[in-house]
Amino acid sequence: MDHQNGSVGVVEKQCFELERYTTVGGQLIPRLRVGYETYGTLAPGADNVVLVAHHFSGNSHCAGYYSEGDPVPGYWDAIIGPGKAIDTDRYFVISCDTLVNLNVADPNTITTGPASLDPSRGRPYAMRFPVVTVADFVRVQKALLESLGIERLVAAIGPSAGAMQALQWGVDYPEWVGRVICAIGPGLSTPAYSIAQFGTWCAYIRQDPSWRNGDYYEEGPPLAGMSNALALLTLNALHFDGIERAFAGRRADPDRDPATSWDARFRVQEHIEQIGSARASAIDANSFLYMVKGLQQFSVRERLAELRAPVLFLPAASDLLYPPQLSHAAAEQLGALGKQAEVFVIEGDGGHLDGLGRIEQAAAPIERFLREGLST
Amino acid sequence: MDHQNGSVGVVEKQCFELERYTTVGGQLIPRLRVGYETYGTLAPGADNVVLVAHHFSGNSHCAGYYSEGDPVPGYWDAIIGPGKAIDTDRYFVISCDTLVNLNVADPNTITTGPASLDPSRGRPYAMRFPVVTVADFVRVQKALLESLGIERLVAAIGPSAGAMQALQWGVDYPEWVGRVICAIGPGLSTPAYSIAQFGTWCAYIRQDPSWRNGDYYEEGPPLAGMSNALALLTLNALHFDGIERAFAGRRADPDRDPATSWDARFRVQEHIEQIGSARASAIDANSFLYMVKGLQQFSVRERLAELRAPVLFLPAASDLLYPPQLSHAAAEQLGALGKQAEVFVIEGDGGHLDGLGRIEQAAAPIERFLREGLST
Repeated sequence: MDHQNGSVGVVEKQCFELERYTTVGGQLIPRLRVGYETYGTLAPGADNVVLVAHHFSGNSHCAGYYSEGDPVPGYWDAIIGPGKAIDTDRYFVISCDTLVNLNVADPNTITTGPASLDPSRGRPYAMRFPVVTVADFVRVQKALLESLGIERLVAAIGPSAGAMQALQWGVDYPEWVGRVICAIGPGLSTPAYSIAQFGTWCAYIRQDPSWRNGDYYEEGPPLAGMSNALALLTLNALHFDGIERAFAGRRADPDRDPATSWDARFRVQEHIEQIGSARASAIDANSFLYMVKGLQQFSVRERLAELRAPVLFLPAASDLLYPPQLSHAAAEQLGALGKQAEVFVIEGDGGHLDGLGRIEQAAAPIERFLREGLST
Repeated sequence: MDHQNGSVGVVEKQCFELERYTTVGGQLIPRLRVGYETYGTLAPGADNVVLVAHHFSGNSHCAGYYSEGDPVPGYWDAIIGPGKAIDTDRYFVISCDTLVNLNVADPNTITTGPASLDPSRGRPYAMRFPVVTVADFVRVQKALLESLGIERLVAAIGPSAGAMQALQWGVDYPEWVGRVICAIGPGLSTPAYSIAQFGTWCAYIRQDPSWRNGDYYEEGPPLAGMSNALALLTLNALHFDGIERAFAGRRADPDRDPATSWDARFRVQEHIEQIGSARASAIDANSFLYMVKGLQQFSVRERLAELRAPVLFLPAASDLLYPPQLSHAAAEQLGALGKQAEVFVIEGDGGHLDGLGRIEQAAAPIERFLREGLST
């Protein structure tokens, strides 16, 4: 195969609207809007569709550029494009901003969540927005696909929270889904450990007096809590070795020994905090809480009988957030049930984030899996 | 050997005082006081001393009971006592409350730190207390030992932060230390990852308006921040498998589905938060920050030439706080320098805490190492 490393180029964010959406939990969301992107061409039979679902803090921008001068492509640009693993000369790729997406201040994200106007009150929902789960994300995506005349997916695929959505697709709509690819996912359910860990992120927000039980849209957001939550999330998504390589022994100020005063610190502390602060104002704190709440509910364990699609798990070797053992255990459990499942490990010392930054390692397994399924 | 599983019985907390102590950083602490415990009998030649250094949130109570009715023994009671691995029929065991010990509200802890009265101001030091490091903990311990006529240790030994102190003993006073045992330690230095991770604990405290830059001793402590810090620390000290075994799928309220409302949660969330809340009022927030600051500075990497004692590393297989690879790497590095070092892994799914709760697995290696050194 000739990997020409082509780009899908400048992409356009589109908007999908539903007049009314009833959540899996039975609550009504009127005037639901979510953004989406597509790359490649929908075949006349609509039989070449690959759905890519995004991670916790991401959006539907998984390939290409927002403009000619845009320096950074979509998060999985390394594997999505003409001639790449998910070959847009062959497949019609579609990705959708989730409900309760975090990036409400980003003009390139369209979502409906706690920061949206509650039409019945003329003010943001805040914590009055219905609780939604991964099954809701998937149900909205299905409505979008149906609106485009699509009734079948070559594959549902995604990293991290996107891996949850891909598996949820597999059990909720087994007749739709040909294959499932779970990159850096938690396996068949969100582990109890992760449920608690997500809670530690949220605790900073809840502890911030500016959070005001979610009603901060007039007075100003809980930036301190949001910054600390993002700093911890960032650290959880990295690994000892990568951090050590970059920061071992480095001081924030080379002339000041951290052992001598409170003002002097190590560079790694500053680095993590700066990442948190830099992103805090772009992210809505309530949406963060809602996204966590949704991901905490993820489990397909009781639904495995319904799964038809073979599953390819792509854990990252150094992932501390969802250690690779979770993917191995999931594949074993599926195998024990007579399902097809396989694991390919992404090597590196970058932790969970290797599922984004080092995904190219999995290009050949992904390309082959999409064309042929599992070798076994 | 006959492990009679004897107990050292009821132990007495004693107090060591120094009129003046000058920190490694050159600052004066007047009237320094720290508590200590001893078990067994000091030999006439004072040549049977084992020093046990305690972990982050612990104190010198590593064996025995505070009273006849005390239900819980010291943290390493499984390996310290007559006929046990650290045999008090043979060794004189001594353990010392560190400077800036967290448990200032505990009547069984004696320490000097930010909650102590600054004699020059007649008020607690708060954040005006000097920054102290693991080297200071060790230097104070040495002064205590000298006051008892001791000039040599069979071994310096400890879990976690105690492992740091044990290695620090080995490089700061090599002529004193016969052996070093590092249980669930970070290896030869605090990893940059851990430095940042400790910072995420502290961020809850610093973010709490009640912290007041440390001057909370009149108005009341930052309990919310302290609770959240302890909850995160607790989670970091556990492991996916142990948590999953105990909490998978369990709801806080069996009748309420966490997917349906914000009030309904998973039991694991409640559990971790309850641990944090339960301990928060017993722990001084400033002391927590000082202890973190001290541990962040730990490194013997530049001092390895001075180390004479063989080192036994006892990592826990499921430790996420200081993964076992850190101990293996440390042992390899020491070996490459011609030093004696060995690793024995404590098995279990309890994470970092297995270095306390499952230490008995290492009883035979510890007993043999104390008597004979390393086999190689």
